[in-house]
Amino acid sequence: MNADLRAQFPILHQEINGRPLVYLDNAATVQKPQAVLDVSRAYYSELNANIHRGVHYLSRKATDAHEKARTSIAKHLNAPHEHEVIFTSGTTDGINLVADTLSLSGKITTGDRILISGLEHHSNIVPWQMLCQRTGATLDVIPVTDSGECDLSDIDSLLTEKTKLVAVSQVSNALGTINPIDILIAKAKKVGAWTLIDGAQSAPHMAIDVQAIGCDFFVFSGHKTYAPTGIGILWGRTELLEMLPPWRGGGEMIKQVTFEKTTYNELPFKYEAGTPNIEGGIALAAALEWMQDIGLDTITAHEDKLLMLATEAISEIDGIKIYGTAPNKASVLSFGIEGIHHFDLGTLMDQMGVGVRTGHHCCQPLMQRFGITGTTRASFAIYNTEQEVETLINAVRKAATMLR
Amino acid sequence: MNADLRAQFPILHQEINGRPLVYLDNAATVQKPQAVLDVSRAYYSELNANIHRGVHYLSRKATDAHEKARTSIAKHLNAPHEHEVIFTSGTTDGINLVADTLSLSGKITTGDRILISGLEHHSNIVPWQMLCQRTGATLDVIPVTDSGECDLSDIDSLLTEKTKLVAVSQVSNALGTINPIDILIAKAKKVGAWTLIDGAQSAPHMAIDVQAIGCDFFVFSGHKTYAPTGIGILWGRTELLEMLPPWRGGGEMIKQVTFEKTTYNELPFKYEAGTPNIEGGIALAAALEWMQDIGLDTITAHEDKLLMLATEAISEIDGIKIYGTAPNKASVLSFGIEGIHHFDLGTLMDQMGVGVRTGHHCCQPLMQRFGITGTTRASFAIYNTEQEVETLINAVRKAATMLR
Repeated sequence: MNADLRAQFPILHQEINGRPLVYLDNAATVQKPQAVLDVSRAYYSELNANIHRGVHYLSRKATDAHEKARTSIAKHLNAPHEHEVIFTSGTTDGINLVADTLSLSGKITTGDRILISGLEHHSNIVPWQMLCQRTGATLDVIPVTDSGECDLSDIDSLLTEKTKLVAVSQVSNALGTINPIDILIAKAKKVGAWTLIDGAQSAPHMAIDVQAIGCDFFVFSGHKTYAPTGIGILWGRTELLEMLPPWRGGGEMIKQVTFEKTTYNELPFKYEAGTPNIEGGIALAAALEWMQDIGLDTITAHEDKLLMLATEAISEIDGIKIYGTAPNKASVLSFGIEGIHHFDLGTLMDQMGVGVRTGHHCCQPLMQRFGITGTTRASFAIYNTEQEVETLINAVRKAATMLR
Repeated sequence: MNADLRAQFPILHQEINGRPLVYLDNAATVQKPQAVLDVSRAYYSELNANIHRGVHYLSRKATDAHEKARTSIAKHLNAPHEHEVIFTSGTTDGINLVADTLSLSGKITTGDRILISGLEHHSNIVPWQMLCQRTGATLDVIPVTDSGECDLSDIDSLLTEKTKLVAVSQVSNALGTINPIDILIAKAKKVGAWTLIDGAQSAPHMAIDVQAIGCDFFVFSGHKTYAPTGIGILWGRTELLEMLPPWRGGGEMIKQVTFEKTTYNELPFKYEAGTPNIEGGIALAAALEWMQDIGLDTITAHEDKLLMLATEAISEIDGIKIYGTAPNKASVLSFGIEGIHHFDLGTLMDQMGVGVRTGHHCCQPLMQRFGITGTTRASFAIYNTEQEVETLINAVRKAATMLR
């Protein structure tokens, strides 16, 4: 990637322990380009005001900017309707919104089943466990193959008429596996199950078209798509968002409040109680536009190339074991080295200036599937370079030698 | 207030329709000082990383900064324990967290009663209506006097052994009334009811000491206390936060996840699923420290003086009616003019550069109490000046003349 692009990320130009920072923890969160930081700054120095309820100049300007952001995000997702784009505080918030309102809807009862995959992040496991506990439904799990893929050999006995919802990540945060959501959504439709796609790890790396995907709900986080922390999106089909009850109660989500009876607002406001993260929403739209300007295909291609280079090079290191060897992967290289603890490996690499993530990646069940407590994970963003891949490989090799 | 302080707010130095902006919608949201904007900017240009789970340099630095922010906020509130400070997305989020987990706890059942006041914002009404609907409890409401105060004449029949929770704002957002939370908390304690104080409108204006207040829960929003949007605080007593079940499921709030059984993390993480608004938390601490540097007493005294000046001057305008005439008020002047619609008044004032809020202020039941659809509301912050109060009064007088 060219120097111009890297120059847009002030944080990347620092030294850690006397070495240039190599930031390879992008699946946890990405750095923010100057253009997005400038939008946030401009919001507070030019138009900050509370939205939707004001007649004054700043409030109208802030409301316009906020709703324009929603329009832009709807377009990015190819959502059929803007009112289907709900601002949340992040992926976790969005999944919990769906799980909790489904719990409350009365549409899930004893005997019903919820299907997730064995590759899911805790945020796409625990809300469904809670829903099951509240409704009497049962959680089913698609098993994982040795290559870190959904094992679909028994899918027709897992995804049946009893299945009410299938909740699967598009890309595994721990292994990088791209899940077969097209097959799962098609099968879910056949049995009348709803589908939620966790896009936390896909939205940063590829074009998202919710109509082409064909799911009922799609969630992702701003902080992984070059936007600030504290903002995310739930997209949902109108019919379902209208069927489900409201979640948080408060200002803006109501039509009329009396102490005897309260009626609720229309979409999207029904799910947006209280003052939203106004700046975050505006900055998220700017971040997605920044990604569009680079080109989603360019981002995918660049990250795929880095992943391929890194995978090839790391495979030559003695004792290496790559977790997640699916042919269809995105931007994540998760590995272990025989006899070396992932924490020790990560700590030594950090001393060489290379920031990687170690541990269970909020995927304890997946780690249990592989009989490990964690991996070391390098994950790539558009601003990473081939030179950084080289530095990564050298750091792994050196750390492994030192730890043996 | 001195020019140095105003100079810290870039947004205030603009013209609206050729007149200097007079921003008097501070009860909706306040503007942010440069010092806080700089902290946000520095976060992204120096230490942005996902927290709690990383061994690498940036992640450790970001985690340190985030937990230092919690420590600082705990100190600001005089919280006995840091783990009682829960990061939320705002006041609405905090109240819903308490209402929903109480619903789920099984501690509230048919026959139980929840007590709120007639002055509450929708965010401190609707969550309790939802709780009542789910648990079979009944909502009681403290009536409001003509001066816009809690009418405590019948309080002992409203606050009884059946009352499980009292949820009251410390300061009314619509009228500015400072509610008698000391009396209500003392009475609640006698009957064993829990207490939640909505501090959305008090935290921006006065020192908060949760131990002196003696409540069980205290909530407020960052965006009203000179911090960015999308961040807020729930403070709760350890015993209660430990008793209540978790709310959102996801990463960080768990101790151990298997598909069969999940155990939950300790406080505060039990209530902080997913990547938090890391920047927001750090900026909130900076904003509260900025307020401390000015002095909470200085802020209170300055805003009280502006309120007194504005109240005196506006009283002389023909046909004026002030809503909220309690002796004990904070920073809010809500009014109407006979025969003039609040919306028309606000619109004309906006054309003169004066930004005020008009409407029901998310307090429809309170407006119904006064037989009106809304008021025009001016609300003051530390950066407002006596000159601006004069401009306000002139604008009201001129608009009233034009509209008659």
